Amino acid sequence: MAFEIERRFLVQGEAWRTDVTTTRHLRQGYLAREDGVSVRVRVAGDAARLTIKGPGGLVRREFEYDIPARDAEDMLALLCAGRSLRKTRHEVPLDGLVWEVDVFEGALAGLVVAEVELPAADHPLRVPAWAGREITADPRYANAALASATAPPRG
Amino acid sequence: MAFEIERRFLVQGEAWRTDVTTTRHLRQGYLAREDGVSVRVRVAGDAARLTIKGPGGLVRREFEYDIPARDAEDMLALLCAGRSLRKTRHEVPLDGLVWEVDVFEGALAGLVVAEVELPAADHPLRVPAWAGREITADPRYANAALASATAPPRG
Repeated sequence: MAFEIERRFLVQGEAWRTDVTTTRHLRQGYLAREDGVSVRVRVAGDAARLTIKGPGGLVRREFEYDIPARDAEDMLALLCAGRSLRKTRHEVPLDGLVWEVDVFEGALAGLVVAEVELPAADHPLRVPAWAGREITADPRYANAALASATAPPRG
Repeated sequence: MAFEIERRFLVQGEAWRTDVTTTRHLRQGYLAREDGVSVRVRVAGDAARLTIKGPGGLVRREFEYDIPARDAEDMLALLCAGRSLRKTRHEVPLDGLVWEVDVFEGALAGLVVAEVELPAADHPLRVPAWAGREITADPRYANAALASATAPPRG
């Protein structure tokens, strides 16, 4: 078991693009969500992974396992109907941390979210100018919730 | 991906015990259940497995992965509160098939269920005399439902 300690922000503008080092496309779906526990399947290129996350905002328990990409494709197609999303993830290194800027697609087009994993919950963080309102504790913006949304959250 | 084709029956009496070949204790919990999809973690001795099942009664899609027993113990303790059960499973071979007779414990004490996996949905099955009412299509008796039950289903 690991803990994921992550802060998340809405992204404003395009200034972050100048510092992008890597970009990859992600497709992910939620097999099931219950009492804050979510079980996600994600495909990135030829790689696929199953991730179980516990409840929480800033700090979440997390278990991750690589699985055959074929299995993941079957799960996305057959078991995640109405609970999936697509996004392009851009990595932006800053102060020794890696910001991940997710540009959502489909029904969520227009939504851009930046996530940054921290080594500790109280780790100091310099928030770049392109990172706007913090949404770490806003359940509407959890990926598990976005996967069922028909449009980006408002307000 | 595989398919699980399984019929299930309530068990009457103790006559099945004379034909038991192997017995093992199982502890299992449900990380999450949604729209008929369930994600189960099971510990049997030193071995642990994560199992994803799709909706359905007789025929269900199924994905299974071995995981570290330590992870499974953490999941059971931390992420499956109110969604777990314990049972002793007895294997009873019959006509080239293996009947699994599950004797439930704790809040489900008194419940005994026999499951038999079939190679095809229309595979002929000789139902032994100790197997009573069929519960394949009764959602109250699904293990995912039993894990949250405070007593065996009635009627």
